[in-house]
Amino acid sequence: MFKKILIANRGEIALRVIRTCKEMGIKTVAVYSTADAESLHVRFADEAVCIGPAPSNLSYLKISNIIAAAEITNADAIHPGYGFLSENAKFSKICEEHDIKFIGASPEMINKMGDKATAKATMRAAGVPCVPGSEGILKDYKECLSLAKEIGFPVMLKATAGGGGKGMRAVWKEENLEAAWESARKEADASFGNDGMYMEKLIEEPRHIEIQVVGDSSGKACHLSERDCSVQRRHQKLTEETPSPFMTESLRKKMGDAAVKAAEYIKYEGAGTVEFLVDKHRNFYFMEMNTRIQVEHPITEQVIDYDLIREQILVASGVPISGKNYIPQLHSIECRINAEDPYHNFRPSPGKITNLHAPGGHGIRIDTHVYSGYTIPPNYDSMIAKLITTAQTREEAINKMKRALDEFVIEGIKTTIPFHRQLMDHPDYIEGNYTTKFMEDFKMKPLEEA
Amino acid sequence: MFKKILIANRGEIALRVIRTCKEMGIKTVAVYSTADAESLHVRFADEAVCIGPAPSNLSYLKISNIIAAAEITNADAIHPGYGFLSENAKFSKICEEHDIKFIGASPEMINKMGDKATAKATMRAAGVPCVPGSEGILKDYKECLSLAKEIGFPVMLKATAGGGGKGMRAVWKEENLEAAWESARKEADASFGNDGMYMEKLIEEPRHIEIQVVGDSSGKACHLSERDCSVQRRHQKLTEETPSPFMTESLRKKMGDAAVKAAEYIKYEGAGTVEFLVDKHRNFYFMEMNTRIQVEHPITEQVIDYDLIREQILVASGVPISGKNYIPQLHSIECRINAEDPYHNFRPSPGKITNLHAPGGHGIRIDTHVYSGYTIPPNYDSMIAKLITTAQTREEAINKMKRALDEFVIEGIKTTIPFHRQLMDHPDYIEGNYTTKFMEDFKMKPLEEA
Repeated sequence: MFKKILIANRGEIALRVIRTCKEMGIKTVAVYSTADAESLHVRFADEAVCIGPAPSNLSYLKISNIIAAAEITNADAIHPGYGFLSENAKFSKICEEHDIKFIGASPEMINKMGDKATAKATMRAAGVPCVPGSEGILKDYKECLSLAKEIGFPVMLKATAGGGGKGMRAVWKEENLEAAWESARKEADASFGNDGMYMEKLIEEPRHIEIQVVGDSSGKACHLSERDCSVQRRHQKLTEETPSPFMTESLRKKMGDAAVKAAEYIKYEGAGTVEFLVDKHRNFYFMEMNTRIQVEHPITEQVIDYDLIREQILVASGVPISGKNYIPQLHSIECRINAEDPYHNFRPSPGKITNLHAPGGHGIRIDTHVYSGYTIPPNYDSMIAKLITTAQTREEAINKMKRALDEFVIEGIKTTIPFHRQLMDHPDYIEGNYTTKFMEDFKMKPLEEA
Repeated sequence: MFKKILIANRGEIALRVIRTCKEMGIKTVAVYSTADAESLHVRFADEAVCIGPAPSNLSYLKISNIIAAAEITNADAIHPGYGFLSENAKFSKICEEHDIKFIGASPEMINKMGDKATAKATMRAAGVPCVPGSEGILKDYKECLSLAKEIGFPVMLKATAGGGGKGMRAVWKEENLEAAWESARKEADASFGNDGMYMEKLIEEPRHIEIQVVGDSSGKACHLSERDCSVQRRHQKLTEETPSPFMTESLRKKMGDAAVKAAEYIKYEGAGTVEFLVDKHRNFYFMEMNTRIQVEHPITEQVIDYDLIREQILVASGVPISGKNYIPQLHSIECRINAEDPYHNFRPSPGKITNLHAPGGHGIRIDTHVYSGYTIPPNYDSMIAKLITTAQTREEAINKMKRALDEFVIEGIKTTIPFHRQLMDHPDYIEGNYTTKFMEDFKMKPLEEA
């Protein structure tokens, strides 16, 4: 087993990893930017190394500084968390070269799955259903047009290097295709320095349902059932739940089998997530695979009593998985509490938290790196806490979330707590009747009515 | 179902009940003494009524004021929590007379079980094993001596109205019996206005293991397995766990059956706890039955995913129980965080909490009514929070507790956090090798070594 793990991340996920390491008796090294010196992940680690100034490319993305920190502190493994370098093949490779175990996917795996077009081709070969579309990057507009006609409108244009909605266009009619093609390529080039585009059939009434998988070095994989992440705003997940209210036993079996097939085909090692789009007829299509831990992993942990970070560490150290698939025994919901103002288009609201009181009691879990007196730096993702409720039924989990949101006190900044509180009262949410389009129509009630 | 429940209690248990009521859509009324105006249970209830000054006999024990508060606010039920009026037959009866449902035992039940000697006689009649001893109150010293000779030394003398160790004496030799008899009676008379004494065989290497039961109005009962509460200081529980490290499958079955038999014999309705002493040969003896919710109920909730307060409310409203016995699927430990200084003989340490930061993450539950800036009044029980960890194994639950205790920040007062932290490192605790005598030999390591 590892003696010391460096966590190449910040915020709640860094703290999350440190907690499990402590419970496993493994020493921890935090790294931090100058903007994060006061974060809890720095306080709770056994050692902490400052790796540069606030901009991520000078600290959390600066591979040389992180490797130096690992070498200085004699860390024998690095956990990358999510985001930052977690799906960076070069970083994974450099760790390997320095004889530091990267707790995540191998460079080859990241290369196979990180590029969306390549990933899709791999999954097709594995026999996993994919959204009809281009095999890899579209050569030119001519190919784009002919393929769109073949698979039928509506279609989606997507940047192969994309993420966060950049370089994406939905096209409902042939006459709009060329303009969309040009503008998406321009945006992709500006955002990622890569204007490669691919095309997919646009799935109507789509639900984003993902399957958690774990694979080990023997090539064996298992799944831990689904998470429904359809409540998204501009492709950013806001709240997630498991089981999905749209799930059936037979769909879970089919999607679980497909996810395990995907993982085993590429001999996936570690924790990963296979993301699917599910249409209203319960057809499902591979979207992408995340070769890392996800933000929303706690809801899976809650319903199967399983520590996924522990499992990542065990698998990375060579321990085989049990191979058993896990089916949710309970219902769990996560609300991402962001430092954003939901009454003003979710604009960021960094600043000092003057008072914080977290809810507690039966069925409540909180993952956060902030505290009363903490100043949220403006440089990073706005998520400051995850509030997770767990109960025997979906209705109880929603009721628990309502009362926990009502108890949650965060003063000094704006947060998305009022959004989640209104969401929990929304008839469509209560019915489980939501797709990835849900937020397009969602309007916050004014403060006085709320 | 009830529309509005008044919670005739304070602190964490009042908040605990309010939380479940909110989740069930039931309105809540808090009552509070002037010393408790700033407590969270007052803030989180829908309504709050001040019922008098700090001394409990003028507020939390003042039946007329509580009934008045219930009538003013139109509450249709009262939850008494634990302590205070929770096992007061007169209060239960007055509630009945005012057509307010008492969420607890009936006056008859409380009378049957509240008096220890009567309870034991009832349990003997039900066929539940009891510690050999007197049938009811000892007439005089002559009877005391002859019985002691019959059952054999060592014996325990106990006040029939007793609690908290008052009026109790362990007697190991005949020559000490008479002096013990006299002094225990004097103490009992002074403490409870009742010098009735009974005698029991003293159990050597005793473990305090209790069985949670739930019964409904049909007379059916089930059990929810055990809690090991052997780590006690002066008969006050400090930490509890389930499963008991001393438990075997066959012992659980025997003790569970006995507890269900006890509950069904008296047609027990609601949540109750049958406390047993278990000797080193795994013989078990009925000690007492608590006809209310216990402080340590959360560990049972954690291992069987069951909300016991919800169950109390459901049963009180006439909903039948499932009748299924529950076996722990996980391991859970509770540490009672008290405002006491463990380095100075656990002396109370009330005062203002200048900073509070609670641990979080996987497997952590916190039940507390305090917050940063809250002033703990000197008038009440010193417990300010319950920290509960849950994991797949006992070892993991202990490791989780260690890291959670390390994260817990409570400034401005002294707490028992350092005690629990040392307990979790104690070889005998780690081995599960402890009896109710454990604390007699426990010494805090000095601060500098800790």
